[in-house]
Amino acid sequence: MMSIVIRMGDIYESVMELAKRRGFVWPTSECYGAVAGFVDYGPLGAMMKRNVENLWRRFYVIREGYYEIECPTVGSESIYIASGHVKGFADKMCQCPQCREYLRADHVAEAHGTNGAACLSAEDLAALLHGLPCPACGELLENPAVFDFNLMFETSIGPGSQRKGYLRPETAQGIFTDFNRLVRFYRNRLPFGAVQIGKSYRNEISPRQGMIRLREFTQAEAEIFVHPDQKEHPNFSAYADYAMPLLGIEQQQKSTPSILVTMKDAVAQGLVANEYVAYYLALTHDLLLRAGVDAEKLRFRQHLPDERAHYAEDCWDAEIFSERFGWVETVGIADRTDYDLRAHAKESGESFTVFIPFDEVRYETRRRIVADMGVLGPQYRGRAKRIADALAVATPGNEGAEVTIDGETIFIPKSLYREVEEQVEIRGIEVRPHVIEPSYGIDRMLYAVLEHSYAEEMVEGEVRKVLRLPPDIAPVQVAVFPLMNRDGLDEIALSITGILAERAILAQYDDSGAIGRRYRRQDEIGTPFAVTVDYDTREDGTVTVRDRDTMRQVRLPIGDLPETLASLIAGTLRFDQL
Amino acid sequence: MMSIVIRMGDIYESVMELAKRRGFVWPTSECYGAVAGFVDYGPLGAMMKRNVENLWRRFYVIREGYYEIECPTVGSESIYIASGHVKGFADKMCQCPQCREYLRADHVAEAHGTNGAACLSAEDLAALLHGLPCPACGELLENPAVFDFNLMFETSIGPGSQRKGYLRPETAQGIFTDFNRLVRFYRNRLPFGAVQIGKSYRNEISPRQGMIRLREFTQAEAEIFVHPDQKEHPNFSAYADYAMPLLGIEQQQKSTPSILVTMKDAVAQGLVANEYVAYYLALTHDLLLRAGVDAEKLRFRQHLPDERAHYAEDCWDAEIFSERFGWVETVGIADRTDYDLRAHAKESGESFTVFIPFDEVRYETRRRIVADMGVLGPQYRGRAKRIADALAVATPGNEGAEVTIDGETIFIPKSLYREVEEQVEIRGIEVRPHVIEPSYGIDRMLYAVLEHSYAEEMVEGEVRKVLRLPPDIAPVQVAVFPLMNRDGLDEIALSITGILAERAILAQYDDSGAIGRRYRRQDEIGTPFAVTVDYDTREDGTVTVRDRDTMRQVRLPIGDLPETLASLIAGTLRFDQL
Repeated sequence: MMSIVIRMGDIYESVMELAKRRGFVWPTSECYGAVAGFVDYGPLGAMMKRNVENLWRRFYVIREGYYEIECPTVGSESIYIASGHVKGFADKMCQCPQCREYLRADHVAEAHGTNGAACLSAEDLAALLHGLPCPACGELLENPAVFDFNLMFETSIGPGSQRKGYLRPETAQGIFTDFNRLVRFYRNRLPFGAVQIGKSYRNEISPRQGMIRLREFTQAEAEIFVHPDQKEHPNFSAYADYAMPLLGIEQQQKSTPSILVTMKDAVAQGLVANEYVAYYLALTHDLLLRAGVDAEKLRFRQHLPDERAHYAEDCWDAEIFSERFGWVETVGIADRTDYDLRAHAKESGESFTVFIPFDEVRYETRRRIVADMGVLGPQYRGRAKRIADALAVATPGNEGAEVTIDGETIFIPKSLYREVEEQVEIRGIEVRPHVIEPSYGIDRMLYAVLEHSYAEEMVEGEVRKVLRLPPDIAPVQVAVFPLMNRDGLDEIALSITGILAERAILAQYDDSGAIGRRYRRQDEIGTPFAVTVDYDTREDGTVTVRDRDTMRQVRLPIGDLPETLASLIAGTLRFDQL
Repeated sequence: MMSIVIRMGDIYESVMELAKRRGFVWPTSECYGAVAGFVDYGPLGAMMKRNVENLWRRFYVIREGYYEIECPTVGSESIYIASGHVKGFADKMCQCPQCREYLRADHVAEAHGTNGAACLSAEDLAALLHGLPCPACGELLENPAVFDFNLMFETSIGPGSQRKGYLRPETAQGIFTDFNRLVRFYRNRLPFGAVQIGKSYRNEISPRQGMIRLREFTQAEAEIFVHPDQKEHPNFSAYADYAMPLLGIEQQQKSTPSILVTMKDAVAQGLVANEYVAYYLALTHDLLLRAGVDAEKLRFRQHLPDERAHYAEDCWDAEIFSERFGWVETVGIADRTDYDLRAHAKESGESFTVFIPFDEVRYETRRRIVADMGVLGPQYRGRAKRIADALAVATPGNEGAEVTIDGETIFIPKSLYREVEEQVEIRGIEVRPHVIEPSYGIDRMLYAVLEHSYAEEMVEGEVRKVLRLPPDIAPVQVAVFPLMNRDGLDEIALSITGILAERAILAQYDDSGAIGRRYRRQDEIGTPFAVTVDYDTREDGTVTVRDRDTMRQVRLPIGDLPETLASLIAGTLRFDQL
């Protein structure tokens, strides 16, 4: 069959029309006027989302061996004071004095030609905005007040506003606050990792970008705890020779294109900070392509010094190109050093360290002071005992030692004590691990995969809409059709559907409308394979299997279906090998 | 090996100690003082929870064919005004005047002997509470004020408190508000169903029951939309002869025990309202046993007339017995009639109906008014046209017809118009479906399964703690041990672990400590099978496989492991058949 790819108009409109009509993504609570920043996943969208999440689990949980945990979405204030979100998780906002609309100040400035407006101070932004037209009503903004709006959803836990709570802005903090439990679970060995897939929240000021800027979204985050001096990934060889284009700081500053480089070289050249970061850059590239992202529309961009968090050692974004939204940050991969654990240690008073035993116990010789009470006593009287205790843990200097009693520093000359030498056994040290964090926005991934897989083709004079989804991402993997809804064909088709379902293949039975229309319906939702039961089936027990992309058909015995389809879906068999 | 079940102390303490220590359930953000009503699922708990959810999906999504959708947890006010939660989702609360502690008024009254205190008015509760001691400080409550506390977590969406939002108190409302989209997805045919698994929230006043009374919990709900006159489940035969004990209204009122009855008989006798309700009672019983609930500690209790919601046609709770908490409501199964859809239709102005075409088009004869403008015109002048339009849709009476223009009712005598008879084609009717709702509390299920599967036995003079979890619920399904961590045994064991993981078997490698200790460690987390690689393995390629419950061991070739273990886990093969 001939197929010609046709030029599409606004692909966003086409994809979202299909997504709504076929049950991938719906406006939420539409009957009450959908609320911006929230979406519902319909039957096919929710299935596809689970497939994407399970693909992510195959990489991070099964292959990397990082266990998944599940923490609440509502958290108490202390967590987010420690993490810095209470103070710093804010966007700059202003209100139009005319129409009272709330505006994101940096977005208004950027729409009028200011780059990097998000980094400007409130005062500078206010000055820039003065005289610009309000994007909502068109009136000029006159000396607008620009202020911080915290993006966390706030609530209270229990009656009487007893306790302030926030909806988590990221899943990561739950992993950090469970650190001490996790260390014990992993029996005090580094490195270890934990992951979480779940809802996070960001109370956007004025979201207008569909699935790209959601107030409630799904994150998949891995927090990998590594020894600060050992940033070699134990399995680095798996991706050492993996080559992919990187847009480093230098390329951005010189406005040169990405460079194609292996991970081994990227680390050797110092383009990427260490093996851990490089490993997850490659793994992320690998995973995104497997999910159905177009390699030509994917780039890895390093944070510039002024956009990188002050504590981060290195930080990259996987950005995916969308016809509508441009380059969209979809995954962040960062070496966050010990920033998070240190912040929680400070706020909670716990140590957030791992005790790393030495291979062999080490001995150190320490000098310790033993006070001579016969001399100290008469001289310091009531304070002599406390001075002696303080001396016992003080470090002796050349002339004497200093101790602090009731805020007063007292110098005790050498003559008032004697020193002894002691052998101290040191079994290991407390280490505060560094955190390597790959953080994925699942909704953005899902939208990118829909957009990249969407195509319109001319087939026999008609437009065929098709989602070229990878078979294990498609919400329906196999469609099963009886040619006619009678003569027992329907029963055979239903029984095949049941057999496939038992093999955990997502199969859908459809007996309504002409067969050609049924194929189109399945093409549109990305179903990679369709099985048709016809009159020959009753004679010889064979069915046709059709491939979505080539539209080719082959006949197979019913008995071969489960194994063959499972292999086609897993990618261990290609359709042209049938 | 001999094993003797020993008498256990407080099983709740033992189970929770194990759950915390081994990483099933942790207090949330412990370093900041855990917040009551929230828990973290650790690595093993999260895995087990996903297994329970996937079991649920096997029943409701794969077998019943109800698609899963995913709606936001934050919803706008209108949804919960319509659903009645803004007005009615509240508990009665009072505050101790001495210690300022917030108390659940009905719980205090029940602790002092009042049954059904939750149904009492605020005034009656206040009167009952007067003079009782505060459970927190012991001081006597004097004329305490009792008032309603709404249990929804409140927040605001967007800046400036523009829009009030609530964390959903149940997943169901998302399915109801998507009803119109779902009808189109299912191509306007009844019955159909949609399900949702996700977080719901209930801002409990003073939760003190661990996983049983959570402020943030996971629900799995199915909403099945059926024709109001067709409550026969299309697959009822699957459970028609399923017999289970039911504690109906009559048994409760007469204080007689549950009666063992088949679903067919239960419907025939009118004990259960219809086939749909009976079908889901049986399916729930089936599912809970498969998940590991002890049949002896499970009962199905019908709501008494005064506890049943006024709109519900029938309502049952699956209650699970806990040593600590008594009978705990874990699943609710209700015929909610058209209450929910009617409420949303009223609030939103949309119809929330399905157009059901008749098998054959029907024709009705209707009389219609055709105004005589030559007569109406002179008499009503400027209003004549509007009166004629109104008459066209009015019902003609014997003497004439009434129309309302600008709020004024005008009687138009027969003489001013003529009537024509028309054949009207009626293709079908709009039907508002009834809703059958099975609603599961996943956290409570999980706790019950942990409690019921926990055992302590004397084995060779030592206490063996074991979780007798079903193999597909256990967080680790197969443990793989090298007898020694050398001589290549570890490599063989690691490679077996990898092969099992590829078969989607949850396998865990462990090489630390004596083999007996490793067995105990796995028994304690419920791992049903353990594979040990020893020196014979290097010679003949066989390994031992040990069964958790009998502690028996058999030798098997490595090549047979994936298939045999998969069958053992799926339950298609028993260990004693090896």
